[in-house]
Amino acid sequence: MRILITGAAGMVGRKLAARLHKDGSLAGRKITALDLHDIVPTDTLSMEDAHVAIHVGDLSEAGAAARLVEQKPDAIFHLAGIVSGEAEANFDLGYRVNLDGTRALFDAIRLADYRPRVIFTSSIAVFGAPFPDVISDDFHQTPLTSYGTQKLMGEALLADYTRRGFFDGIGIRLPTICVRPGKPNKAASGFFSGIIREPLNGVEAILPVPRSVVHTHASPRSAVGFLIHAAGIDGDAVGPRRNLTMPGVAVSVGEQIEALERIAGADVAGLIREETDETIWSIVKGWPTRFEATRARALGFTAEENFDDIVRVHIEDELGRTI
Amino acid sequence: MRILITGAAGMVGRKLAARLHKDGSLAGRKITALDLHDIVPTDTLSMEDAHVAIHVGDLSEAGAAARLVEQKPDAIFHLAGIVSGEAEANFDLGYRVNLDGTRALFDAIRLADYRPRVIFTSSIAVFGAPFPDVISDDFHQTPLTSYGTQKLMGEALLADYTRRGFFDGIGIRLPTICVRPGKPNKAASGFFSGIIREPLNGVEAILPVPRSVVHTHASPRSAVGFLIHAAGIDGDAVGPRRNLTMPGVAVSVGEQIEALERIAGADVAGLIREETDETIWSIVKGWPTRFEATRARALGFTAEENFDDIVRVHIEDELGRTI
Repeated sequence: MRILITGAAGMVGRKLAARLHKDGSLAGRKITALDLHDIVPTDTLSMEDAHVAIHVGDLSEAGAAARLVEQKPDAIFHLAGIVSGEAEANFDLGYRVNLDGTRALFDAIRLADYRPRVIFTSSIAVFGAPFPDVISDDFHQTPLTSYGTQKLMGEALLADYTRRGFFDGIGIRLPTICVRPGKPNKAASGFFSGIIREPLNGVEAILPVPRSVVHTHASPRSAVGFLIHAAGIDGDAVGPRRNLTMPGVAVSVGEQIEALERIAGADVAGLIREETDETIWSIVKGWPTRFEATRARALGFTAEENFDDIVRVHIEDELGRTI
Repeated sequence: MRILITGAAGMVGRKLAARLHKDGSLAGRKITALDLHDIVPTDTLSMEDAHVAIHVGDLSEAGAAARLVEQKPDAIFHLAGIVSGEAEANFDLGYRVNLDGTRALFDAIRLADYRPRVIFTSSIAVFGAPFPDVISDDFHQTPLTSYGTQKLMGEALLADYTRRGFFDGIGIRLPTICVRPGKPNKAASGFFSGIIREPLNGVEAILPVPRSVVHTHASPRSAVGFLIHAAGIDGDAVGPRRNLTMPGVAVSVGEQIEALERIAGADVAGLIREETDETIWSIVKGWPTRFEATRARALGFTAEENFDDIVRVHIEDELGRTI
């Protein structure tokens, strides 16, 4: 089978490509070609591997999406997008990439007139405060960011294009991905990963919110697992509601720190310095805490069971060690 | 104040224009200009009236929306759209008019750089079965038609553009409008109005579903009332969730018929012939029944209290009689 990944140079895209390359198959079928698309060339996989092709471009540009689906990939992972902070800072860019780019891809598939599985990464940013204690699968979508709005619009298109038979889409609402590898960034959510990643590297991390803050996390490995699982599930079993809130681990920041201490010791956990940042805290207060994710669990999507596992996954996958 | 209505030649648009013309004011301010836009010229109001201007065009065409907002109307009623059946039958037309047209208008307002009140007519078609017995304000939006999808996307844009300060938008999710004046049409929902309208004209009407079917209705007069009320409410009191499910009268078809009989007599009600149409019934089964509309009621939106009133409004407004 031929597979296309958009946003293949991003954190999840790179991990997904590497996993597919390693597995050699998807949903029980041998992978014969892997098209990796992004706005910058991805260096994840060697070009010497004949069945991997690197594509560079902007999906919202005329003809770009049509060229990508010309060879009718059987599964399309649409991960490309401008991140939340950038979509908020640059209104035009966010709508062009996240909405117009997604619509251009979906329309190119529609006009190619075949019916591939399309996996779209959406986000819990489609939800906006105030929230109940636990957010059920039938809670309304009222995003409070342009990014969340664009994801919601992509979800709506995905469901309608699926209903009309243009493709067989699954929207995956990712929780916060934790522990994100790499350097600290300025995202308001950065500390959720930072307080684990930095201490494990022997570096101090700032905790800008109280330990009582609760949030839902899944590891990068689980995120890739969601996408792989979505490629193989029975579309009929999903029904017309194509956008699924993924499971995750709902924990307080205090419980995150306890998990780190259990696994890496008090000295490591001691590298977290509590220094409340009112700006960050006020942003975080508007974020969802717990999700039921009943439908996704029933459809076989799984995440870690507890935060200890999330820390272990990070140590194994990013630090190359075993606990 | 200057007012713009798009879709001014439609049923609700015409009634809204006539009401504004009669009132002479909106939200306590004198109306100095009324711009009526549609794809066809509306003949509602005389052009001899100097402050009424008729505009004809397609909002999704380049420059059309910018020209409409050039004179910076203080209140914009965006009613223009392709109806449900047509949006389903003509995919491209539906997305072009309902999505691209709406976005073009919203972007023209954004680029005109002022902050008018924008009232957008959405629909309960943003919801899709299965439903709970009563649909609460926080029930998720999973449309089952392209029309509903396009309305949901318009709602999402409206909320985001409002949040970003480009305009001050209110989305009005209209229930089924009953009794629709005019000739019978082929819409699956047509019978809800037909079983009242036709008998009152001495004509037989077919009832294609069982009397137990429950649905929510509001009169055309109430629909106009929602829009007028939306123009005057305090945006801060609405908060970031800008799209409101309107109140209505939830009744069974049997209760509709009882109301007709109470008001117009058994002979009139006797003109309804029950002839179940499995196709129509299967469509109607997927439609929402009752809504809480708690937020809209709290914000002062009102509809009829019972179906008798809906029948009376039709007799007064369309047949020129009083009960």
